[in-house]
Amino acid sequence: MKIIIIGATGTIGKHVSAELEKEHEVIKAGSKSGDLLVDISSIESIENFYKEAGAFDALICTAGNAQFGPLAQMKDADFRVGVDSKLMGQVNLVLIGQHYINPKGSFTLTSGALADDPILMGANISAMNGAINGFVKAAAIELEKGVRINAVGPDIVEESTAYYPYFPGHIPVTMSGVTQAYVKSVLGGQTGQIYKVL
Amino acid sequence: MKIIIIGATGTIGKHVSAELEKEHEVIKAGSKSGDLLVDISSIESIENFYKEAGAFDALICTAGNAQFGPLAQMKDADFRVGVDSKLMGQVNLVLIGQHYINPKGSFTLTSGALADDPILMGANISAMNGAINGFVKAAAIELEKGVRINAVGPDIVEESTAYYPYFPGHIPVTMSGVTQAYVKSVLGGQTGQIYKVL
Ligand SMILES: NC(=O)c1ccc[n+]([C@@H]2O[C@H](COP(=O)([O-])OP(=O)(O)OC[C@H]3O[C@@H](n4cnc5c(N)ncnc54)[C@H](OP(=O)(O)O)[C@@H]3O)[C@@H](O)[C@H]2O)c1
Ligand SMILES: NC(=O)c1ccc[n+]([C@@H]2O[C@H](COP(=O)([O-])OP(=O)(O)OC[C@H]3O[C@@H](n4cnc5c(N)ncnc54)[C@H](OP(=O)(O)O)[C@@H]3O)[C@@H](O)[C@H]2O)c1
Repeated sequence: MKIIIIGATGTIGKHVSAELEKEHEVIKAGSKSGDLLVDISSIESIENFYKEAGAFDALICTAGNAQFGPLAQMKDADFRVGVDSKLMGQVNLVLIGQHYINPKGSFTLTSGALADDPILMGANISAMNGAINGFVKAAAIELEKGVRINAVGPDIVEESTAYYPYFPGHIPVTMSGVTQAYVKSVLGGQTGQIYKVL
Repeated sequence: MKIIIIGATGTIGKHVSAELEKEHEVIKAGSKSGDLLVDISSIESIENFYKEAGAFDALICTAGNAQFGPLAQMKDADFRVGVDSKLMGQVNLVLIGQHYINPKGSFTLTSGALADDPILMGANISAMNGAINGFVKAAAIELEKGVRINAVGPDIVEESTAYYPYFPGHIPVTMSGVTQAYVKSVLGGQTGQIYKVL
């Protein structure tokens, strides 16, 4: 299977890549690093990326930023950091990628536990995660030629120790647990699912 | 109580207005019609609106567009119709309005059942509804001075007969049922809730 992983050098992406490349052809991508470069906040970059990558069987996105900060100071421009990257970056990977993916292929996006279990300063992230979850459920019933789509929605992962202080009482999830959720999405047969890793 | 209703002339908003103005001061607003005009897709318009409206106890938003159409043809610009109106319109009403609302006031936004129960051609709407739900849960734990926030998430309402063909098997909800969800949000004490009306 030919699998593209966007965000392959990241905290989550590097584990997902390591696991899947044991048995599959993995194309690693990022905005600064990887086999191929793509900036998911640009539709031109995404379009060029798919042309370069060629037909593929699965796309995983473990990239996407959102704004972390207090609601009391949050402005439209802060909120749009998440809109342009975590939300529209991932949505555009699907809107454009649906025209390049092989039949029976799959998209796996990343949302997060904050959609339902918020933390202080996380309003932008919670909103973006909720949007990705809603999008995945709806896109799943429209994608053609057996193409599937799921999201992985982890709680804070064990290697993101720098964020621990902002997640009081959240029990970090193991990298292997998170990785298996992506494996389930790509190699399993389900669609329209949000795989929470809690 | 002084209650602002944005979208007060709409299918849902007119019922909510009629119910609440029995016992409260209601300021009705819309982009073309109402006691005061506001375009929620413009942050300048929202800022001016709040200055004009003065201090208030509750804001209800029953306005916000999203793009309805097939995923196979959907482009970034289509998807951003919902982002700029239904999502950022409502989010900006809160981000800006938190600095104008009275202590112990409330915000009530509108999402919809499609967040979890998608229909064909509804991917943009499902995503925006999910985003609003995520935002409301997170904003609730940060709003200061006892200010609350909830969302009402109705299935298709009985008066929206033109949309019935796109909601096969959905049982339209009554206008009075939907209206009571807004009443519960404004006059009750809960926060961070998604009042589904199914
Ligand atoms: N870490 C957690 O605890 C956690 C928990 C729940 C959800 N999540 C979500 O999981 C996702 C990944 O998190 P992470 O902690 O693994 O992130 P990370 O360590 O910061 O890695 C981000 C990855 O995305 C790439 N990237 C960044 N901007 C990009 C762009 N514009 N276009 C293409 N690639 C880009 C980066 O590579 P380049 O620098 O080369 O671009 C990098 O490979 C995020 O959406 C995050 O919200 C994370
Ligand atoms: N109808 C349903 O079955 C249903 C079900 C679930 C959820 N919802 C959601 O509920 C909300 C209201 O739906 P509806 O059917 O009642 O809508 P509607 O009948 O189209 O009414 C929309 C209202 O919003 C105002 N408005 C439109 N654009 C605006 C803008 N840019 N700034 C300020 N006000 C604006 C309109 O007044 P002006 O023309 O004067 O601007 C009107 O009062 C939407 O978010 C919709 O997605 C509806």
